[in-house]
Amino acid sequence: MDKFMKMAKECAQHGVSHNEGGPFGAVIVDKAGNIIAKGNNMVLANNDPTAHAEVTVIREACKKLETYDLSGCTLYTSCEPCPMCLSAIIWANIKEVYYACTREDAGKIGFRDDIIYDYLEGKNKDLIKLEQIDREKCIDLFEEYEKNNKIIY
Amino acid sequence: MDKFMKMAKECAQHGVSHNEGGPFGAVIVDKAGNIIAKGNNMVLANNDPTAHAEVTVIREACKKLETYDLSGCTLYTSCEPCPMCLSAIIWANIKEVYYACTREDAGKIGFRDDIIYDYLEGKNKDLIKLEQIDREKCIDLFEEYEKNNKIIY
Repeated sequence: MDKFMKMAKECAQHGVSHNEGGPFGAVIVDKAGNIIAKGNNMVLANNDPTAHAEVTVIREACKKLETYDLSGCTLYTSCEPCPMCLSAIIWANIKEVYYACTREDAGKIGFRDDIIYDYLEGKNKDLIKLEQIDREKCIDLFEEYEKNNKIIY
Repeated sequence: MDKFMKMAKECAQHGVSHNEGGPFGAVIVDKAGNIIAKGNNMVLANNDPTAHAEVTVIREACKKLETYDLSGCTLYTSCEPCPMCLSAIIWANIKEVYYACTREDAGKIGFRDDIIYDYLEGKNKDLIKLEQIDREKCIDLFEEYEKNNKIIY
């Protein structure tokens, strides 16, 4: 077993045994193989639906390295990242991810990972109501941002 | 202009003028029309790539209501939620979302919302390396979780 995946699994076990969240753990490692952050799902402990293991370790790694850019880092996670986590990984510029269990495995025990993937692939579009309003009143936000050469991340 | 969208826009403006992040703001309202949380993108201020406006207000609303479940709440956001935020909204059980600018508008000024949407729709699959390993060594995490009737959220 990969040593970093073993560590991600141990994080997941820690989280479950302390009732902190679902059975999910993750580890972020830099190019040299140094562990930058490790952690587990904290949804229940923190009352935070965004505190999946991957998001938790991304936040921790960024805090530690004092950057929002984790280019060059690799993420190990005990389960395939859900679309929220996968997008967070892309926003953080992590380019290499190893995962163990699948979205279907998570779905089988009741988590909605596969439902959200389906939604983003264009299926079950009635999952939520998503409506556009007032674009013409808000587009100047973007025009101003571009004009002032503000930071893009 | 919708009054909650106006507020979301004002949050976006506040965030940009204080260099806290991109030009994005959001508001969460309960069924009675009470404002539960409002805020803006904090990626730059917090060195947190997950601190988009929607995620920021979801975290704040959950903290305020002491729950990871925002059923019955409505979210207003000055820009179409990226896949991370949309998934966070679904995990939080928010069923109604109003947005102003689009993913294409965000893309035009340099943000990667549309690239991530494309990725999740099966395009540009070389965006990141995503590889499965050690499933057989981790699947017992899920079997144990199910056996012990742990919480599903």
